[in-house]
Parts: sequence; C-alpha cells; structure tokens
Amino acid sequence: MAVNLHIPSESEIFPVAGVEIGIAEAGIRKAGRRDLTVFRLAEGASVAGVFTRNRFRAAPVQVCESHLAAGRGVRALVINTGNANAGTGAPGLAAAQETCAALAGLLGIEAQQVLPFSTGVILEPLPVQRLTAALPQAVANLAPGNWYAAAHSIMTTDTQPKIVSRRLELDGTTVTITGISKGAGMIRPNMATMLGYLATDAGIDTALLRRAAGAIADRSFNRITVDGDTSTNDSFIIMATGRSGLRIESENDPRYAALYAALESAAAELAQKIVRDAEGATKFMTIRVEEAASTEEALKVAYSVAQSPLVKTAFYASDPNLGRILAAIGYAGIADLDVDGIRLWLGDVLVASQGGRHPDYREEDGQRVMKEPEIVVRIALGRGNVADTVYTCDFSHEYVSINADYRS
Amino acid sequence: MAVNLHIPSESEIFPVAGVEIGIAEAGIRKAGRRDLTVFRLAEGASVAGVFTRNRFRAAPVQVCESHLAAGRGVRALVINTGNANAGTGAPGLAAAQETCAALAGLLGIEAQQVLPFSTGVILEPLPVQRLTAALPQAVANLAPGNWYAAAHSIMTTDTQPKIVSRRLELDGTTVTITGISKGAGMIRPNMATMLGYLATDAGIDTALLRRAAGAIADRSFNRITVDGDTSTNDSFIIMATGRSGLRIESENDPRYAALYAALESAAAELAQKIVRDAEGATKFMTIRVEEAASTEEALKVAYSVAQSPLVKTAFYASDPNLGRILAAIGYAGIADLDVDGIRLWLGDVLVASQGGRHPDYREEDGQRVMKEPEIVVRIALGRGNVADTVYTCDFSHEYVSINADYRS
Repeated sequence: MAVNLHIPSESEIFPVAGVEIGIAEAGIRKAGRRDLTVFRLAEGASVAGVFTRNRFRAAPVQVCESHLAAGRGVRALVINTGNANAGTGAPGLAAAQETCAALAGLLGIEAQQVLPFSTGVILEPLPVQRLTAALPQAVANLAPGNWYAAAHSIMTTDTQPKIVSRRLELDGTTVTITGISKGAGMIRPNMATMLGYLATDAGIDTALLRRAAGAIADRSFNRITVDGDTSTNDSFIIMATGRSGLRIESENDPRYAALYAALESAAAELAQKIVRDAEGATKFMTIRVEEAASTEEALKVAYSVAQSPLVKTAFYASDPNLGRILAAIGYAGIADLDVDGIRLWLGDVLVASQGGRHPDYREEDGQRVMKEPEIVVRIALGRGNVADTVYTCDFSHEYVSINADYRS
Repeated sequence: MAVNLHIPSESEIFPVAGVEIGIAEAGIRKAGRRDLTVFRLAEGASVAGVFTRNRFRAAPVQVCESHLAAGRGVRALVINTGNANAGTGAPGLAAAQETCAALAGLLGIEAQQVLPFSTGVILEPLPVQRLTAALPQAVANLAPGNWYAAAHSIMTTDTQPKIVSRRLELDGTTVTITGISKGAGMIRPNMATMLGYLATDAGIDTALLRRAAGAIADRSFNRITVDGDTSTNDSFIIMATGRSGLRIESENDPRYAALYAALESAAAELAQKIVRDAEGATKFMTIRVEEAASTEEALKVAYSVAQSPLVKTAFYASDPNLGRILAAIGYAGIADLDVDGIRLWLGDVLVASQGGRHPDYREEDGQRVMKEPEIVVRIALGRGNVADTVYTCDFSHEYVSINADYRS
C-alpha cells in the first residue's frame, strides 16, 4: 500500500566503512521473525542522537541519553522490535541496561558504549532473556553488507523497508551515506520517526555532529505527521565513522555544507518514506504554507491541516472537499488571521481566495488533482514571507483496521 | 449506532411558552427532506449566543453576531441544513442577510431581529432562492409543539435526534427548559457543537443570560471532542422568553442557582448526546483528569488522550492497549510532568502507576472494562487538586466511511 516508496536494489546500497550489522531472531513477540539488530561501530566513530519529547520516555531512550552523556564513545547499537520497553518502570530500565551489558560483554566493550532501542507494544515487560539469548547469533553475523536486512529487521507495522544510500565526492574523497528508518504510526513532530539511523564514513567532530543532528531532525523527522501521536521511543541517530579519511572539525570547513546537505537530504528521504508507508496511507500529501509571519505560524497552519481527520478522510476519498482545509486553517490558532487574505491551491489549481471559492475554480479541476497519489496543498497566508512544509498522508479504513487489530 | 443515546418520547417534550417552531422542505441539497427550521420568539425574550472561534467564521455566524450586537431584540431564528454557507465570501454574507430579511418580512419584524444558522457542506454557494421560497411553508406551520420535529430537521450526518426537556419548580412557578442540538463530526472545544438551542420560559436579564451562555458553553459544548476539528459554524443559543412569569434580574436572586444548574445540565446532556451519536461512534468515553495543577493542564491531558487516533482505535477494538493512553499523556505538553507520579484507571481498574503497569493489573480486568459501551478513563497526575472532564468517543471504520463519502 505504500505510496511511491522507492526501494533501492541491494546493489544501490553502499556499506559504510566502520559499520557492521548483525541480525537475529530473538522471538521477542513472535517466533521466526528477525526482530533483533546489532550495529558495531569502529573505534573513534562520532555518534549523536535526538530523542522523543514525550514525557513518557521509554527505558531505552533514557539509557541512550545517559550513555551518550557519559561520553565514553559509542561502539554499538542494539535494536529490538516487538516490544517498546516503555511504561515499564524500574524493571524496564534494568532490562535495557542488561541488554547493553550483555552486548558489551560479547563485543569486549563497556556497557556505556552501547545504545539500546526498542519499538513495539507499550506497557508490557521486555522479555530480556530471549533478547540477550539471541545476541550471540546477531554478533556472529556482523557484516558491513547487512543494511538491507537491517531495514527489514527493524520494521513493525511497516509494509516496506526504508533505506537510502548515496555517495558524494568531497575534495577527491568518496564519502558514503547510508541510513534506514522505521515507523508507520504514532508519528508526529518531536520526534516524528519511530527509529532512524544514518551513518557516514566521513569523520565529524562530535559537538558539531550533535548540532547537525538537531538541525537535521528538525528539517526531516520533525516535518512529518501521520496521526498526531508522538511515540515514547522516537530516536534518530547519526554515526560518523571517519573511515573514508575525510574529517570535518568545524562548520567553517568548506566541505561541511555539501556533507551537511547530503545528510539532511538523506534524513528527509528517510522521514518521507515513513509517511509514504504510513499505516493505511493511499496518498502522500505535501502541505506547504507560504507568506507566514513566522516559522511557528507556518507550522501551526500546516500541522492543523495535516492532522485534521476530516481533511485526511476527504483526501482518502479523492474528494475535493476543500472547505475542510479552510476550516483547519481557521482553527490553527492564529488569533488575528484575516481569512480574506488567504489563497489556497490544490496542486496547480487556485481553489480559494478572499474568504471563499475562487471564481474560476471548477470542481473537475480539483477532482483531477485529488485523484493523484501525490498531492501538494499550498496555502498562502498573506502575512509575511516565511514558508515551511509538512508531509503527511490520508486517513483510510486500513488505518483503523491496523490500529484496532495491532495487538491481536 | 448511537451509544446509549436517550430519545425521549414526544410526551416527554414540554413546549416552551413563547417559542413556536415551523419546518419546511427547501430542497437545499436534496429534495424531499425537511431542511429548514424557523423559531419565532415572543416579544421581550432575551437571547444570547456563543459562536465558533474558528477564524473562518461562516456568513451566518457573522450575521448572528452583528444582529445580537445591534441590540434590537431577537424575534426569530432560521436554520438550514445541507449547506454551511461558509467560505462563501461576500455573496455568502448577502445570502444570509437576504434570508433574514425574507423571514422578517413574513413575520412583520426587522431583519436585525432574525438570527440565521447554516450547517452542511462548506465552500459551496447557499441556494438562497430555494431557502427563501420555502420560508412561507415554515412560517405556516409555526407551532409550540414542533420541538421533536425540529430536532430531526436540523440533523445532517446525525443518526438520531438530540433533544432534552425538563421542568423545575422555582418558588411555586413551573419553569420549562427544552433544547435540541445537532452535530456528529467536526466537533471540538470552542465551540464543540455544530448547533445547539436551549429555551426556557423563565425570564432572564439579557446581560446575565449572556454571561450564563458563556459559562454554560464552557461546561458543556466546550468539553466534548469527536475528531478535533472545530467547525466554521458552531453556534449555541439560549433563549429566555419570560412567559412563565418568573423573571431573574441578577445572579444574587436566590432562584438563579437552581435555574442555572438546570440549564447547564440540559446543555451538558445536549453536548454529550452529540458524542453519543458521533460519526461512527461505538463507545462513549469519559476522560477525567484529577490532581492537576490547573484547569488548563487538566484539559491539555484530557484532550490529548481524547483526540489520539491510536487511543480511539484501541477503544474501538475493545483492546486495553493502555500504553497508548500513557503516551498521549506524555505528549500533552506539560513540560515538567513526572510520569512516576501518574496513576491511570480504566473504569475501576488501576492500570498504571509509577511509570509502569500496576503490579496487580491483569489483562482480563482491562478487557472486561473495554467491552463496555461506556468507559471512564481516570488519570491522576499527582500535581495538584484540580479536576476536569472531557467526553469523547472511539474511532471506527464507520467514521472513515462517513467522512470519505459525505458529499457523494
């Protein structure tokens, strides 16, 4: 059901020097499914993370933050599906720590050098014994070429793997960027992905990478929404191994802009893939707000439209019920909004202006746009010169089915 | 499909002295449907209104506010279904005014003494000629006993009429309160109803009635949510004819508290009926937040839970996936929320405490509560002593069907 989600062939996926990936079947929730993924990073890699702002922070998120703050360097990640280890209290924290310790023991590193991640059902104890029992299997098959398999093994309700890979030349050095993401529901800004991992063989100063991670998350995973629900586990990690030989210490390095742009673009693609494969999605919608007085109000309007169940069901039905978009703009919370100054386009069709339907608008023009699988909604507020964009999807019967039946 | 929605028999509906209602088939959207309702009020009635805070205010809302502000007294209401006359610009305003003028001409009153209301599709021109052509038919059957028919004729996607009627004795005078409401989608606080009308034969000073209307709306229509969408047309009107002989000039009148309580209770019942008959609803959910530091944060948490599509689909499935409730509490926007201080009950079952599942919780206990058509979710924040309650419903396949097919 995913909407125009490009799945590269395995030959298009470039391994990242300094990153090995191993996969196992731990039987966390169901037997016979690859549900455990381990990343091993070469010594000296820089790692930065951005995590959910939900006040219920899952145990692994708390452990990630604590391990990153410890500053011992990150040498491994461990990711399980089937159970989110969230709302699990002190035993959940202990389980996440035990997971790190077990992997550290196998790899000959410190527990604080391991970052744990979990995704799946909330409020159920993590079956940590099954997880640690499978770690040797994952470690045994650590290999640089396992990205494609990892994109599969971190999936939950995803129907398709999300993976990007690209190469760029910087000063004669070939730099590789490869990443994966997962998450098809409980998607909203701050953070918007369930899980996202982006690795490069460029070297990047850790403090610089930390700033870059925040900025990149803000332009990628924090610009998508599926159902307005912010998960307890959302995590986005950037790893820079330095194994390409190229190393950047400062924003002023002339090569940094190109590297940053490539990382941001890869993250944006990973984020948008989540929307393309969102639960029940049949359409990919770009909500672009222009002529706003500030980024804040551009995003208020964009999210108000992107999260309206009425707008989303109308798009599902290919119904140009554009009044629902106007209504969502109207309740976005901009107190002094002058609705007469607003123009609204559906694709290239000017639909509304001056508080009402545009005189030239014909229903069949709107209908034509609505039938496309990719739809751009453009809203000009007439208040300033700030623009911003949010990506979302429609709201279908299938969304309800998936979320009503998730645990059964 | 409505959930425990009580429909009184016609004999339980008491007319309100000084209020007559007439109904007609105007063919606004479909032929052969009663889609036009007229209220005539006796001279001297006090009328107050509360309207949507959506910045796209439908033409009739703008005209209502202007006519109420003119202070000429209100002698009539005119309500059409099938078209919301919203997002219709200057022609829409003219159509609403033309409607008022036409009815005023028929009743021998001033156009400014008429309040217009519209509900239905947005962004389509109101067929005002069809509406005014049917007004004589509505005026011809004006009668005090038409409340039940009016509850039907203001329905759009409602499956059941919403009507309340009660009598109370105040100082030996029998006072009647009767009201109707409609609205099954695009429901959210500020305002939460599409349309609500409450009439009493008590007399109430207009300034006092205005304050009462605001307070009552806040405790009734502003405490419900279906899909988080605020309509362009939401309106709540209280009419006090004074024809019972009882008249209240001030809050200090000892009879006022009882009258106010009865009006608020009737409005709350009208509001909750909207949720009980919400689009696709199969369950009525009461979200009560206790131990909050303020009303604002109690409502933030309550609405965050009440509007989460993941929570709502879990309830639809009778699935005690309570982690979704914890997640919604966690992203409600209370920055310093200590999740270890939260307790969560599903009905009488203590589900979560200290950041995790309560040790005594058994899935079958949660399951038992989830199977009920009426479910109380109680959340204690451990931060203060303020409590507040929001009413909502689950999210079903039927919601998607109704809203995907609304215009077809």
